[in-house]
Amino acid sequence: MSLPIFYIESAAAVNDIMTLPEEASKHIIQVLRKGIGEQVLLTDGTGNLLTAEIINDHKKKCGVRITQGQHTPAPGRQITIAISLLKNTSRFEWFLEKATEIGVQAIIPLLCERTEREHFRHDRMKSILVSAMLQSQQSWLPVLHEPISYEQLFRQEVVIGTAQKFIAHCMEDARKDLRNEAVSSLPSQIILIGPEGDFTPGEVSLALEHQFVPVTLGNNRLRTETAGVVAATLLRLI
Amino acid sequence: MSLPIFYIESAAAVNDIMTLPEEASKHIIQVLRKGIGEQVLLTDGTGNLLTAEIINDHKKKCGVRITQGQHTPAPGRQITIAISLLKNTSRFEWFLEKATEIGVQAIIPLLCERTEREHFRHDRMKSILVSAMLQSQQSWLPVLHEPISYEQLFRQEVVIGTAQKFIAHCMEDARKDLRNEAVSSLPSQIILIGPEGDFTPGEVSLALEHQFVPVTLGNNRLRTETAGVVAATLLRLI
Repeated sequence: MSLPIFYIESAAAVNDIMTLPEEASKHIIQVLRKGIGEQVLLTDGTGNLLTAEIINDHKKKCGVRITQGQHTPAPGRQITIAISLLKNTSRFEWFLEKATEIGVQAIIPLLCERTEREHFRHDRMKSILVSAMLQSQQSWLPVLHEPISYEQLFRQEVVIGTAQKFIAHCMEDARKDLRNEAVSSLPSQIILIGPEGDFTPGEVSLALEHQFVPVTLGNNRLRTETAGVVAATLLRLI
Repeated sequence: MSLPIFYIESAAAVNDIMTLPEEASKHIIQVLRKGIGEQVLLTDGTGNLLTAEIINDHKKKCGVRITQGQHTPAPGRQITIAISLLKNTSRFEWFLEKATEIGVQAIIPLLCERTEREHFRHDRMKSILVSAMLQSQQSWLPVLHEPISYEQLFRQEVVIGTAQKFIAHCMEDARKDLRNEAVSSLPSQIILIGPEGDFTPGEVSLALEHQFVPVTLGNNRLRTETAGVVAATLLRLI
């Protein structure tokens, strides 16, 4: 059975000693009942996977010594999904979990004209990404940006520097098929997913002015979070 | 704004008069406050989309006359997803909703060796499929089979008659990439998705004996319901 794995904010070197966060300590010592000498895995979400041996079984401040470390490089191709916040927060949280399992490198919550929610609990959303990363045995955490307005999006470095840019929308205008457009040999892709009521014609025009390619994700009308997961699947698995 | 749409168990012909189910009646008359002469859309989930005019505004037995009917043929290619029931029912329900949005023609709940739930509320699961169909403006409802044991699966007509058969699993054995295997010119595909603990080696062997091709859905380890949605996406959008 594989070792239990926990998230730490930053990595440490072999032989370093560190104190684990309270939540991880409690889980290791009280729930799993691990003791001195037993091992756990730790990841910082930037590719570092550390093996650690328990040296102090304090249930709130578990002490460990790092015994081994390995580093997984980031995926060669970076995928960013910029997606509207949703009125139903649990649907947005489903998307965060699934996007992490499938393998997305950055998520930008968007505030579009028709977005019905502004409130965003960053810590809660990040903890969902962390849980999904740990559960799927990965060591890279998607970067979760703060929500930004649609117009601000086009001034972000991550957007300007991305090799391929797509916007998915439901209007009848000519759109290309994402499956035929995304190229796996290019280093990065970003796709924009709109709110429950879709992007406005003005928002689509603004994207086209910034060289975004309008795409469709198939023949059916998808909910926002479904479109996000379909897009993540198509982009990751080209 | 498009007309509200409701599910009916079987279609009717133009000029026929029918009484709508209580739930639909209540929604139309009390919630939407539609009145005599106004229109609604009805679908039976087998491709029929009917326009109906209200002739009796009874809040439990709304009467309508069918004024128009159109039929959408079933998709040329039929996709079946046979997927283990899950301990967490809401995750399974999430899969049902997303599979319907993306466009799957049949869903077979499986009871595998490692499946952690046996109880299955057919009516509730079907209502989730109906809601997803209506919300995504489709008129074809996925067929929802009763749960069957893994071994029974291989005796089902729908399985025997399917053109391409796949089993997704997480063991290290050689597997092909689903994206390269599925062929859009063939009339049907089925894929098997295992429970939280994956299929057993014995279950995989049984599938191979029945000419199922073992496949992977990418490099990451996916939850069951995520694997189901990824598989639905890859199969529908080849």
